[in-house]
Amino acid sequence: MVAVSLGANKYGKAENRVVRVYRDTPRHEIVDLNVTSQLTGAALADSYLEGDNALVVATDTQKNTIFAFAKEHGIPSPEEFLLTLADHFVSEFDWIDGGLWQAEQYEWARIVVDGRPHDHSFVRKGQGTRLATVRSADGQTHVTGGVKDLVVLKSTGSEFAGFPRDKYTTLVETNDRVMATSVTGRWRFSPEAVAEGIDYNALYAEVTSVLLSTFATVHSLALQQTLFEMGKAAIAARPEIAEVRFAMPNKHHFVYDLSPFGLENPNEVFYAADRPYGLIEGTITRDGAAAAPAAWVDLPTFV
Amino acid sequence: MVAVSLGANKYGKAENRVVRVYRDTPRHEIVDLNVTSQLTGAALADSYLEGDNALVVATDTQKNTIFAFAKEHGIPSPEEFLLTLADHFVSEFDWIDGGLWQAEQYEWARIVVDGRPHDHSFVRKGQGTRLATVRSADGQTHVTGGVKDLVVLKSTGSEFAGFPRDKYTTLVETNDRVMATSVTGRWRFSPEAVAEGIDYNALYAEVTSVLLSTFATVHSLALQQTLFEMGKAAIAARPEIAEVRFAMPNKHHFVYDLSPFGLENPNEVFYAADRPYGLIEGTITRDGAAAAPAAWVDLPTFV
Amino acid sequence: MVAVSLGANKYGKAENRVVRVYRDTPRHEIVDLNVTSQLTGAALADSYLEGDNALVVATDTQKNTIFAFAKEHGIPSPEEFLLTLADHFVSEFDWIDGGLWQAEQYEWARIVVDGRPHDHSFVRKGQGTRLATVRSADGQTHVTGGVKDLVVLKSTGSEFAGFPRDKYTTLVETNDRVMATSVTGRWRFSPEAVAEGIDYNALYAEVTSVLLSTFATVHSLALQQTLFEMGKAAIAARPEIAEVRFAMPNKHHFVYDLSPFGLENPNEVFYAADRPYGLIEGTITRDGAAAAPAAWVDLPTFV
Amino acid sequence: MVAVSLGANKYGKAENRVVRVYRDTPRHEIVDLNVTSQLTGAALADSYLEGDNALVVATDTQKNTIFAFAKEHGIPSPEEFLLTLADHFVSEFDWIDGGLWQAEQYEWARIVVDGRPHDHSFVRKGQGTRLATVRSADGQTHVTGGVKDLVVLKSTGSEFAGFPRDKYTTLVETNDRVMATSVTGRWRFSPEAVAEGIDYNALYAEVTSVLLSTFATVHSLALQQTLFEMGKAAIAARPEIAEVRFAMPNKHHFVYDLSPFGLENPNEVFYAADRPYGLIEGTITRDGAAAAPAAWVDLPTFV
Repeated sequence: MVAVSLGANKYGKAENRVVRVYRDTPRHEIVDLNVTSQLTGAALADSYLEGDNALVVATDTQKNTIFAFAKEHGIPSPEEFLLTLADHFVSEFDWIDGGLWQAEQYEWARIVVDGRPHDHSFVRKGQGTRLATVRSADGQTHVTGGVKDLVVLKSTGSEFAGFPRDKYTTLVETNDRVMATSVTGRWRFSPEAVAEGIDYNALYAEVTSVLLSTFATVHSLALQQTLFEMGKAAIAARPEIAEVRFAMPNKHHFVYDLSPFGLENPNEVFYAADRPYGLIEGTITRDGAAAAPAAWVDLPTFV
Repeated sequence: MVAVSLGANKYGKAENRVVRVYRDTPRHEIVDLNVTSQLTGAALADSYLEGDNALVVATDTQKNTIFAFAKEHGIPSPEEFLLTLADHFVSEFDWIDGGLWQAEQYEWARIVVDGRPHDHSFVRKGQGTRLATVRSADGQTHVTGGVKDLVVLKSTGSEFAGFPRDKYTTLVETNDRVMATSVTGRWRFSPEAVAEGIDYNALYAEVTSVLLSTFATVHSLALQQTLFEMGKAAIAARPEIAEVRFAMPNKHHFVYDLSPFGLENPNEVFYAADRPYGLIEGTITRDGAAAAPAAWVDLPTFV
Repeated sequence: MVAVSLGANKYGKAENRVVRVYRDTPRHEIVDLNVTSQLTGAALADSYLEGDNALVVATDTQKNTIFAFAKEHGIPSPEEFLLTLADHFVSEFDWIDGGLWQAEQYEWARIVVDGRPHDHSFVRKGQGTRLATVRSADGQTHVTGGVKDLVVLKSTGSEFAGFPRDKYTTLVETNDRVMATSVTGRWRFSPEAVAEGIDYNALYAEVTSVLLSTFATVHSLALQQTLFEMGKAAIAARPEIAEVRFAMPNKHHFVYDLSPFGLENPNEVFYAADRPYGLIEGTITRDGAAAAPAAWVDLPTFV
Repeated sequence: MVAVSLGANKYGKAENRVVRVYRDTPRHEIVDLNVTSQLTGAALADSYLEGDNALVVATDTQKNTIFAFAKEHGIPSPEEFLLTLADHFVSEFDWIDGGLWQAEQYEWARIVVDGRPHDHSFVRKGQGTRLATVRSADGQTHVTGGVKDLVVLKSTGSEFAGFPRDKYTTLVETNDRVMATSVTGRWRFSPEAVAEGIDYNALYAEVTSVLLSTFATVHSLALQQTLFEMGKAAIAARPEIAEVRFAMPNKHHFVYDLSPFGLENPNEVFYAADRPYGLIEGTITRDGAAAAPAAWVDLPTFV
């Protein structure tokens, strides 16, 4: 008989689509989240080993808690909402050692009627989805914010040249190309900043704005360089950020060959390819900030 | 041996992702389309019946033409680009009787740097995808514009009551609910307006704005009613529009039952469901406008 | 004030995911459907025009009926289940003139344990999704069956040559290429066959088998030809079928150019492209069968 | 000025869709992969820090290498193909320290014509997608196989009871429910077995068969228990496997409440929900096998 053991595990309820409406005044506010809660604990092993559920806080209970907390505690920001959930599960059940809580936030803008933002009618913004995670393990709590699906393009100001050539290299050097990517980024907050309290919403707005303006203004010699400068700018903008991780697909836009038709194509007509795509990933860390690899365990892989 | 005949058919190249950059000045402009071209013609039957390709304008040729025309003719608007393609194929090959040309347009906004829109860096807008079609058949040319994936929500100002009850009815009447939908709409331009010329880009901006503000301001007794009022408003706004068709999923937001936890939930915490969803479809026509069912043949079904 | 009218419309509940388990014996059977129900009726206009819901059979009621009927009537086949729904709504509510009912069926195979199919454990098959529709209008009832996402490829036995060349043609002729497509097809049953009763499940199995074997054995000069032969074979196989409609994307597999690396590539290494793709659509009708354009109104467009 | 450093990074070309046809005899074979290649190396930092590409093996070169290797080395199995790529990049470029190579494999079955499998015509199987990864780091090479999207359901033989109840618990205990999941699993091969050589294709077939039969036969008290037993069975079946990781969504099938319609529903009619879903993840390790956390760094998160 083979001898095996249980290794790393977690369980919970994924993708709870909770929408919170604040309607204390005629001018409503809405917060629209997709929340995942998962718990860990050494004592949970028996559910795997023997199907003993005596300590299994049901995933249905986790779901109920998410919706109840949206009422009881509100959702000031996705980060704070996840922190409240983490604190509840870890403190309420003494056999729960920690867990991973994740959120996506879909942002809504007020519909403009006769030049004025409407009180209770909204249109969904599509520029990027906000991300947040809280991971609790070994008595430590780690918080990240982030963004995904922030699609950007520059029609010039991007080069790619000077790379090594081997037997399998056919790519031509270029000093003017379209560069496009869909930014996925996560920034880790320093534990000190989390303890002091952060205006997460203002920070998100500022960081995404800095990411966009840095993408726009860096003359790019490689997507790697743009990625690094974007991370550096985010860290420079906000002292709460200890570290930034990015995954950026290089969404290739190929100059379409119009020469068979007697036409020139000086970077005017492009074919936007789906696959394959470049995939550039990198981490930028603030010098002096303590590393926290535990913060990233089990976070969804970028892209 | 069974005797069969060839019925309706068409063929072409789908989803050509063409990006056109205008770079005559340092302030670049970009147009980003997904174009499908399909041709029809009685003489094409032999390709089906016998595999005789003598008259089959290759789908690869249709692709090349799309990209070449992006250079030769530019893309002032998706509607005009499709009209140019339609005219080319129908006039260049005398055995091509007509066809269907479709486009989706992805809109981009300039990235703002230090308060000023950047010359050549863009972020993709996410509020809806613009649609256009041209159909040529029987010597007639039909043009539609449209939008899809325009997601809207109102947190109050929506009722649903007074419906009939049968053995299978359990739904409770409500005079205050969240109403959310993802608008897909297409508007058909009158042939007269097409012949005179239309500022399609200005029209698209105005119509989508009118759709949003009408959604916001109509006190809704049913999504059907909101749909009708939105179509009426679009027709009222622009004389070029003869007809509007909509498909609107009713994206249900259910009040989460918090009573087991001793909590009230006066329309504050909702569960956003995926499936099933309501699906409301309707057509609004301008009185006196000639009907044109041929315009809609083979258009992608809504939703 | 602009004068407008209500045109074609329908409303209902989409994508009801109903799973029916037959457990009368230890050897369970399961039927897994995605059902959409939509109703029409001239008297429903007031819901659009005035928000008057007095005649609006709630979409929630339609949902309840679908699930209740899965118990009351069972699901012998998707076609028969939709017919039962159609009959109910049209006969139960005298102001309902007709409607459109659609289903997708996901097939499951029994898991094999020690060489024997298990009684109550299943793995989802992935070869195609079964389709069915019933449309009731003007006192007529139309029934179609079908399949989508049936992905096939032949590594030889396909040519494309002899096509016309114009200024925009660069494609090279080939007498040996990979041909791949994802078959979407719908077959319309003759009203006479529907009235007599059809073994829809056996027919589906036979037709999909015939489609596959015809794809395999036809030496293809064009995807158009293959499409026609597949439809002809389906009609030849089953007298119940009056008409077949197909949409077949030509999923391009390009020979990768290995010559820069000093390698030959005699149709051995291919790049499978996503977009653009060819899109070939066609109808094959049985000679003598009455046409029924009303059967196809509002059916989801292929692909 | 903020001081920052570059942390973990990698770059490459993602989702290369390579299809290899073996046509040495009339009975063709096809292998259909989606391959991602990414490289790491301390010396690559300058591409991030300064946009210096002197050591950047272009992602386009990585793509060319993948397609050329499909010809030069063939694709005996995804694991062996990735190993060949890894060896090439690490040995050819002395500044490349390692990398991550990933593959998905889409399986095809021969189309059956007149009871006999066809020589060169295929239909894509849909039961799960095969996975493989190779990670090279610090002079070590780690290999995993796996599967995703293997959707299974049992209509009885599953309970969930005995769980703790708190203020937010409303779930009713059940001793008979539908249990369904979409299995994502990865198994790590021991370095010794990799060195000796493995029949990866035979192993994949055996492991997926064992996973299915274990799912079928375990009377489940919790999805956690089923998950553990499935991993244990895989390890028992094949000595090459050191460790198995699973992510299994609990795809809820809710008994539809038919009591308002006077109908009983003894587990016969279910509503298959989309979101939220349970999400159970776990690792099963062979006792005595050396741990290898480096094997899992940057692997796509399950589900």
